[in-house]
Amino acid sequence: MAGNSYGQLFRLTTFGESHGTAIGGVIDGCPPLISIDEDFIAKEMARRKPGQSSITTGRAEDDAFQILSGVFEGKTTGTPIGFIIPNKDQRSADYGTIKDAYRPSHADYTYDKKYGVRDYRGGGRSSARETACRVFAGAIAKLILKDLGCTVDAYVSQVGTIKLEKPYTELDLSKTEDTIVRCPDAETAAKMISLIEEVRAEGDTVGGIISCVIKGAPVGLGEPVFDKLHADLAKAVMSINATKGFELGSGFAGSAMRGSQHNDVFVANSDHITATNRSGGILGGISNGEDIYFSVAFKPVATIMQKQDTVNKAGNATTITAEGRHDPCVVPRAVPIVEAMAALTLVDHLLRYKSIQ
Amino acid sequence: MAGNSYGQLFRLTTFGESHGTAIGGVIDGCPPLISIDEDFIAKEMARRKPGQSSITTGRAEDDAFQILSGVFEGKTTGTPIGFIIPNKDQRSADYGTIKDAYRPSHADYTYDKKYGVRDYRGGGRSSARETACRVFAGAIAKLILKDLGCTVDAYVSQVGTIKLEKPYTELDLSKTEDTIVRCPDAETAAKMISLIEEVRAEGDTVGGIISCVIKGAPVGLGEPVFDKLHADLAKAVMSINATKGFELGSGFAGSAMRGSQHNDVFVANSDHITATNRSGGILGGISNGEDIYFSVAFKPVATIMQKQDTVNKAGNATTITAEGRHDPCVVPRAVPIVEAMAALTLVDHLLRYKSIQ
Amino acid sequence: MAGNSYGQLFRLTTFGESHGTAIGGVIDGCPPLISIDEDFIAKEMARRKPGQSSITTGRAEDDAFQILSGVFEGKTTGTPIGFIIPNKDQRSADYGTIKDAYRPSHADYTYDKKYGVRDYRGGGRSSARETACRVFAGAIAKLILKDLGCTVDAYVSQVGTIKLEKPYTELDLSKTEDTIVRCPDAETAAKMISLIEEVRAEGDTVGGIISCVIKGAPVGLGEPVFDKLHADLAKAVMSINATKGFELGSGFAGSAMRGSQHNDVFVANSDHITATNRSGGILGGISNGEDIYFSVAFKPVATIMQKQDTVNKAGNATTITAEGRHDPCVVPRAVPIVEAMAALTLVDHLLRYKSIQ
Amino acid sequence: MAGNSYGQLFRLTTFGESHGTAIGGVIDGCPPLISIDEDFIAKEMARRKPGQSSITTGRAEDDAFQILSGVFEGKTTGTPIGFIIPNKDQRSADYGTIKDAYRPSHADYTYDKKYGVRDYRGGGRSSARETACRVFAGAIAKLILKDLGCTVDAYVSQVGTIKLEKPYTELDLSKTEDTIVRCPDAETAAKMISLIEEVRAEGDTVGGIISCVIKGAPVGLGEPVFDKLHADLAKAVMSINATKGFELGSGFAGSAMRGSQHNDVFVANSDHITATNRSGGILGGISNGEDIYFSVAFKPVATIMQKQDTVNKAGNATTITAEGRHDPCVVPRAVPIVEAMAALTLVDHLLRYKSIQ
Repeated sequence: MAGNSYGQLFRLTTFGESHGTAIGGVIDGCPPLISIDEDFIAKEMARRKPGQSSITTGRAEDDAFQILSGVFEGKTTGTPIGFIIPNKDQRSADYGTIKDAYRPSHADYTYDKKYGVRDYRGGGRSSARETACRVFAGAIAKLILKDLGCTVDAYVSQVGTIKLEKPYTELDLSKTEDTIVRCPDAETAAKMISLIEEVRAEGDTVGGIISCVIKGAPVGLGEPVFDKLHADLAKAVMSINATKGFELGSGFAGSAMRGSQHNDVFVANSDHITATNRSGGILGGISNGEDIYFSVAFKPVATIMQKQDTVNKAGNATTITAEGRHDPCVVPRAVPIVEAMAALTLVDHLLRYKSIQ
Repeated sequence: MAGNSYGQLFRLTTFGESHGTAIGGVIDGCPPLISIDEDFIAKEMARRKPGQSSITTGRAEDDAFQILSGVFEGKTTGTPIGFIIPNKDQRSADYGTIKDAYRPSHADYTYDKKYGVRDYRGGGRSSARETACRVFAGAIAKLILKDLGCTVDAYVSQVGTIKLEKPYTELDLSKTEDTIVRCPDAETAAKMISLIEEVRAEGDTVGGIISCVIKGAPVGLGEPVFDKLHADLAKAVMSINATKGFELGSGFAGSAMRGSQHNDVFVANSDHITATNRSGGILGGISNGEDIYFSVAFKPVATIMQKQDTVNKAGNATTITAEGRHDPCVVPRAVPIVEAMAALTLVDHLLRYKSIQ
Repeated sequence: MAGNSYGQLFRLTTFGESHGTAIGGVIDGCPPLISIDEDFIAKEMARRKPGQSSITTGRAEDDAFQILSGVFEGKTTGTPIGFIIPNKDQRSADYGTIKDAYRPSHADYTYDKKYGVRDYRGGGRSSARETACRVFAGAIAKLILKDLGCTVDAYVSQVGTIKLEKPYTELDLSKTEDTIVRCPDAETAAKMISLIEEVRAEGDTVGGIISCVIKGAPVGLGEPVFDKLHADLAKAVMSINATKGFELGSGFAGSAMRGSQHNDVFVANSDHITATNRSGGILGGISNGEDIYFSVAFKPVATIMQKQDTVNKAGNATTITAEGRHDPCVVPRAVPIVEAMAALTLVDHLLRYKSIQ
Repeated sequence: MAGNSYGQLFRLTTFGESHGTAIGGVIDGCPPLISIDEDFIAKEMARRKPGQSSITTGRAEDDAFQILSGVFEGKTTGTPIGFIIPNKDQRSADYGTIKDAYRPSHADYTYDKKYGVRDYRGGGRSSARETACRVFAGAIAKLILKDLGCTVDAYVSQVGTIKLEKPYTELDLSKTEDTIVRCPDAETAAKMISLIEEVRAEGDTVGGIISCVIKGAPVGLGEPVFDKLHADLAKAVMSINATKGFELGSGFAGSAMRGSQHNDVFVANSDHITATNRSGGILGGISNGEDIYFSVAFKPVATIMQKQDTVNKAGNATTITAEGRHDPCVVPRAVPIVEAMAALTLVDHLLRYKSIQ
């Protein structure tokens, strides 16, 4: 209930502050006999890792994970998978100024108000470092989905005002990893990278949008009426730091349309269930076999290299200037996090569906 | 786990098909000694009720509720509140054609695939009639919030291409109920109504957007890291039929901004916590005391009065034409549903917060 | 969280006070396409019904149930099964004296302290009338188990000091319903009935023990480490009114034994997994295919027809004398309740097991 | 749902096999600002530790714990408390013979059947080593209860046929730790120790009973109707390895009594709520302020130093003889485990109660 678990049957519980001994978690409900490919997990985590490219933070966090239980001779055993990711880069000095002053648009203020205490070092629990645990667990979820022929691929579709205008169906998603910004369209990617570099040079940050496509999801996932698949996907990705919006299929643009334009008619004798897919692969909260696709809006990173007004714990006006190394734009590194949350959601619903079959 | 419950501590479980004997539910976890104002509940339900105006469906469902337990001498007792809403309008004949053919962009197909069986009468469980139970429970949640000085007010901010361009801070939300379309700006409302009438005359439907504003929410609601308040709000409203998107505060537009423009600086000695509120009242997943505001996109109603291609249960091509009376646009009646889901989410988080205080 | 739901995947939520309009509930997570035999359900409920024999309360409650949803053309649809059992016998006058004075060994006092309010009519929510909902849901669980060849049979093994000394393996459980006391051994049953009649004549009550045998349970049910099958069975039956103890297999007597006497050795080429079954069919919290058997202790009914000392709401000494008609011994009517809770537990664990298969 | 979490609001999730890298867990929902006394936690863990006395196993497991998160400057922060207990004694050679043959009355067989795979080293997940995590978490729960003036004290009341006949009210529970068998009555303790030594000399084991007394529990804990306090206590302790029975207050003996003997009448102007306490401090599932007391039956340890018949994975008859060092009787070391599960249950219910206050 305290918010550190995700999923009902395939359930991830995480713990850890950015500057504590380690972050980590437990995956409970993983089916037995899943082959655990640690190299794959490590690759997924490298995609989220700080310091991976010239447009991310220069911090060199070591995201080496240790699996402590639940895997025996390379396979899951059905018992809980405990894991930790030790924290190596604990230069607390970088964060001394935030002990008393609240960083604008960060969680310092609300944690203090809610709990009456706060591990102020590096944002503590509210740091995005926590998402490393999501990527770890998401990698295992992806291994389960892969066996079903189901893939989850996200990419950056907008950085600031630079938009990738093409729909995903016109993109080659295998090229997402070709650019450091994780946009599969090389031309747009170049513009995005330039923008990020420009913004960074100004000591500023910029927001962006990530789009995600799920192919091959089993038909029947999603539990009406409250746990509709897209409702759970919305929650899953909106729980990632810095998110401001979610849309499935036609999304907000669909609101401007008429039913006769928007409806996806069913087709017989086809590889597809429906002739179009404005629904985004989900009908009545249940996957229908078409591609599931959605987008997630991220605000600009709150930590900027400029002096800002704020208040301190005592309630007095003061100013704050960020120190340390921070991302000028979160979306390139958030791509694997979005995929992880989507994969966790799908596997959870897969297990839920199996329970009534 | 089967998706018919919402909330962890203030928990609504619903049941019922559109053409069964009754729909209803149970609210478990309601604190004792809450005065139950049945007139208020009835008013809330009337706002969702079919047949309420010239731009909604002409079906005259009777949404009279019966409280079966949990209330004694006008007050809650801490025991579960059981309630039913009998189904009166059961003209199954209207729905005969959908027994075998799948209505485009409806849940008929996915229910059949998931469960292998389907109560096809009026959409059965997938009918939006189910949302009457949400409004009932949401009304009780609102009564709890009212005692804390917290209000939840939604309104229609877009119908098709007709947008209310003003931010909520420039609107008088007390006027929302003045127009049948539930848009507080009279001029825009008139255009919306015209559009809905035009669309209906064509046998078509149109989508829309609902915006919602929560004032006076207690500071400290929201459970990081997975049950962030906005993640739970997203899930709550995305579980309403026909939703396609959610955005909090600056939303998708915020993705185009820079950190220096977007950050909300804290201010001392003010009625406000922050000088601006692009965050939408939530920082790090926890309410900060500023207004919480968000928008929800709805697709056009899938049931149109036009012949559509589809397939039948046997997988063969066929056509389908809707019969009966249906809404040309869902958003006017969905306003109280959005409010209800928001109120349920807030009260649930209120109880969760109280548990650690 | 508020305690009115049981089960994780096959989940019963109940509501209702003894003298309200109705009691009822929702079963969420029932697999689709289960044939609902309403006659069987009615028979099960008749076994719990007040006024069924000369040794039970003379109250003639009408336990007619109405299924409101989730069943279509005689089969479950996978959607929630809502049901109500209207309260007919609402002679509140019988209960007037308990409005202010706390009945000894009843829940009046603790409800008042916990909630600050109490529906005092007939015990309100704390009345055993609530168990009718358990029997309803348990009957559906039994229908699911029957298809798997799994049976759940309970019987009265002790009333006061009258004990049925034979182990269940020497009994013919098909004879349980032959006597009104539900003891399958006719001779012991006669003694039990005499004792109950004697006790009633004195205006007193007496306790008893119910034993339960589950045959044909699938191997693999139970989720270590916390949700061991016997831990969940213990909780399930200990949640029934008036229970004071639970033991599985060898139980408390097993504590006096040595390992060399107590261990159940595995046997090859046999109808049985183990040569003996002191474990009670569960090893490490998981069913092993042998019979599961356990016993449940019930205290004497707290409502006696004798004047008792007590205190009133104001904290002053007073006396109370029961009125109305009450059971002199609860165990004959509790037999189907024990079976119901066991069946609900098994089906819940069955669905949990299926989720990882 | 997979069984490795306990508690709803104060929630412990554990992981780990006896011979893996580490065991550990996460406590989610711990209120902030609780002072964490690591010395106290270490003392509690030492009470459970193997090799602590001449009547326990000679294995010298090192139960040193590491708190990885959730505690800052000595106090809890409201974020999850992650912890690990590294496994030091991993002499797998001792357990080689159990790779293929199923140990009688152990979980080897059922784990293999349920999961299709099993970490056979030392019992893997089914080993009682897992309970070290419960004692860790229980110690934190006790720290919370201590601040409320609530204590949880268990002791050994029976070993084999040696019974401590006195009720807890005639015992000085401060003497429990004075004897290595954890029986507060010196004379009985001496007999118990002799019996355990005798049994061990024979290569055999013996069962026993632990009784537990909770003083000062707040009034109002327990959530009717399914999560009655004693139902949750029953589940909590029945989830400990080797348990066979639970009884509250008068327990099984109460079944032989009459209502007029058994009822606890309320008393005015007294330190007590009721004149007697056969109810065991719980009425209608809710604590009433009187002492809560219960007993738990443990079977004899299944691992005996004698040759036993069994079958192997292939289903063929074979024999097995235990190697390594094992406890001849589990109850002396299980005392802190019973206390831990009781404390976790109380704190969980405390937080649940606070949510509606």
